Amino acid sequence: MNREKVQIFDTTLRDGEQVPGCKLDTNQKLLIANRLDEMGVDIIEAGFPVSSPGDFLSVKEISKIVKNATVCGLTRAVKNDIDVAAEALKFAKKPRIHTGIGTSDSHIIHKLQTTRADIIARAKFAVSHAKSYVEDVEFYAEDAGRTANDFLARVCEEAIKSGATVLNIPDTTGYCLPEEYGAKIKYLRENVKGIENVILSCHCHNDLGMATANSIAGAVNGARQIECTINGIGERAGNTALEEVVMIFKQHPYLNLYTDIDSKQLNEMSRLVSDSMGMIVQPNKAIVGANAFAHSSGIHQDGVIKNRSTYEIMDPLDVGVNQSSIVLTARSGRAALAYRAKKVGYELSKVQLDLVYFEFLRFADIKKEVLDDDIHQIIEVCNIQSELIRN
Amino acid sequence: MNREKVQIFDTTLRDGEQVPGCKLDTNQKLLIANRLDEMGVDIIEAGFPVSSPGDFLSVKEISKIVKNATVCGLTRAVKNDIDVAAEALKFAKKPRIHTGIGTSDSHIIHKLQTTRADIIARAKFAVSHAKSYVEDVEFYAEDAGRTANDFLARVCEEAIKSGATVLNIPDTTGYCLPEEYGAKIKYLRENVKGIENVILSCHCHNDLGMATANSIAGAVNGARQIECTINGIGERAGNTALEEVVMIFKQHPYLNLYTDIDSKQLNEMSRLVSDSMGMIVQPNKAIVGANAFAHSSGIHQDGVIKNRSTYEIMDPLDVGVNQSSIVLTARSGRAALAYRAKKVGYELSKVQLDLVYFEFLRFADIKKEVLDDDIHQIIEVCNIQSELIRN
Repeated sequence: MNREKVQIFDTTLRDGEQVPGCKLDTNQKLLIANRLDEMGVDIIEAGFPVSSPGDFLSVKEISKIVKNATVCGLTRAVKNDIDVAAEALKFAKKPRIHTGIGTSDSHIIHKLQTTRADIIARAKFAVSHAKSYVEDVEFYAEDAGRTANDFLARVCEEAIKSGATVLNIPDTTGYCLPEEYGAKIKYLRENVKGIENVILSCHCHNDLGMATANSIAGAVNGARQIECTINGIGERAGNTALEEVVMIFKQHPYLNLYTDIDSKQLNEMSRLVSDSMGMIVQPNKAIVGANAFAHSSGIHQDGVIKNRSTYEIMDPLDVGVNQSSIVLTARSGRAALAYRAKKVGYELSKVQLDLVYFEFLRFADIKKEVLDDDIHQIIEVCNIQSELIRN
Repeated sequence: MNREKVQIFDTTLRDGEQVPGCKLDTNQKLLIANRLDEMGVDIIEAGFPVSSPGDFLSVKEISKIVKNATVCGLTRAVKNDIDVAAEALKFAKKPRIHTGIGTSDSHIIHKLQTTRADIIARAKFAVSHAKSYVEDVEFYAEDAGRTANDFLARVCEEAIKSGATVLNIPDTTGYCLPEEYGAKIKYLRENVKGIENVILSCHCHNDLGMATANSIAGAVNGARQIECTINGIGERAGNTALEEVVMIFKQHPYLNLYTDIDSKQLNEMSRLVSDSMGMIVQPNKAIVGANAFAHSSGIHQDGVIKNRSTYEIMDPLDVGVNQSSIVLTARSGRAALAYRAKKVGYELSKVQLDLVYFEFLRFADIKKEVLDDDIHQIIEVCNIQSELIRN
């Protein structure tokens, strides 16, 4: 079976930047856009041009410098939004306008206070109008996650007829389970006329902690674009994390799906975004957290020392981390202690190890992490004890 | 259909504490154990007694104070581990010994350097020996996620015959996809003699960002216990997050599964663990992150002001957060600005709003977050401008 490519649509600079207190200036955005381009992102969503003069400027400047990726601007299904986005994107080598409207009953009734027929009319207008500016038009059906599949299919079909090249099926509120989201993509593949001529895209939010799993379920069921952000940042609990998607396809080759991302740049990219925005990455964040490749329990350390694969499915080098680490704590066993002691210059006999390990545990119950310096100190203490006993 | 309960097995104090630099002292552990008990956790894994004197003491003291939950101690399939755990648990009202051994080829060959037959013999011995101390024995098949299903089924069958009451199927390396993990649980349900008399348990790691989705897939396929930690902490990228599991079952009632956790305590519990361990929770963490209920884009704010359900699937009060917040940034629209201006005392006409919004955007492009004080200042500037224009 041929492997198929899943396009990576990075929205760090748009949905990712919709984070309280984390606004980037244009220069910071240019730096990030440039690095995303170098890392192999297929589409960079650069901003929401009509939303503010600063955003307009950023989209315009990003459009000028990006070499390979498509540059995309967000709009509502509103004429002026689309006009402004087209203007902001005019220097892009490959411009894309991203337009759309809410399709769930919650959005139609409560937010837009209108009817389904009107939604379809507005969707058609927005796509056609965007198409008058650019060839590449992505349509989003906002809150698709909670939209009835039959109505969603009708909206999608009209968007395709109006010229959409990509259909984005967002789980805007982060509500879906993977099986449910995957089934939605499958339903669209089977029930929308012309679907074979466009790309289906997943845009999942992480409110229940399942954005990544939902996106993967979407891809397995036929989506060929995933919208994601570095470190999974974004509105509320954020978006699908780019680094997780990339590594899942790498670790599960039998899915026959791949991305063009150079995974070795993931760790540095994560730091750049975290530092620029002041958005902390928790130590237990998958792939890019500080502890993602740190082993601290004795059982795990023993295994990793014997053979990495026992507790590690990824080579840390593959995501740009120099090495996994064996962290000595009260959970560490003799094997890890002996391994580290050897590294800092002590070849311990079995009897010596028993004594040193006993002292090590007393020490580790008090101090959270035992460092190389501490090992020298522990072994020194043991030497004195031995002397005293012998005398 | 009757709703079925999924037991919550909290391992914050064992797997969660296997984090570099985050060791808790016994008093901190007692405080957390007490709060977990009050929140409705069914089983508290209190530690790995043989691993260090401090851990032994903690398990012993926790056993004394826990009122409702089962208290569990981890062991390897080693006689001394089990003897020590039984001793540590002797004051528990409901003690459970958790014992097991690696079952994947990677673990059997590289870590344990033995044969499948020997693994089965050791598993049988461990369960029987634990059973000689306590009625409630949980068996784990380490690295079950990468263990061939037929061998896994054989090991499980022997563990049941030896007296296991719970079978833990850990995805130790965080490798599985939800569909795969769910299918593994289903396979065991269909192929292990006596499986109907025991509880199947999910213990998933988050290396690829899918621990929660995997655990849910396990429960949907018949597991009735989920092993998890507060904030998803644990070895490497951590474990399934307790708060996510609890809220998923609440938000998806058609699954007919529930837990006994009082979700209103989730937010405070998250802070207690984070503060005690110094383990930061990232702002975009699902359920308990600082931004999990913060809306910052104009489109979202407009929707939430009209009707919460447009962008919020959970009531923040349900997880112990006082209210969701509308954060004013350059992404905010007129509706959010008018809403906030009204809250701080200004009823703006449409014309006034246009002027104030223009000034607001200039301001917001410079400052990351616009606070109430800033609004007073912005409106003051606009008043002066109006005066100047009129004169």
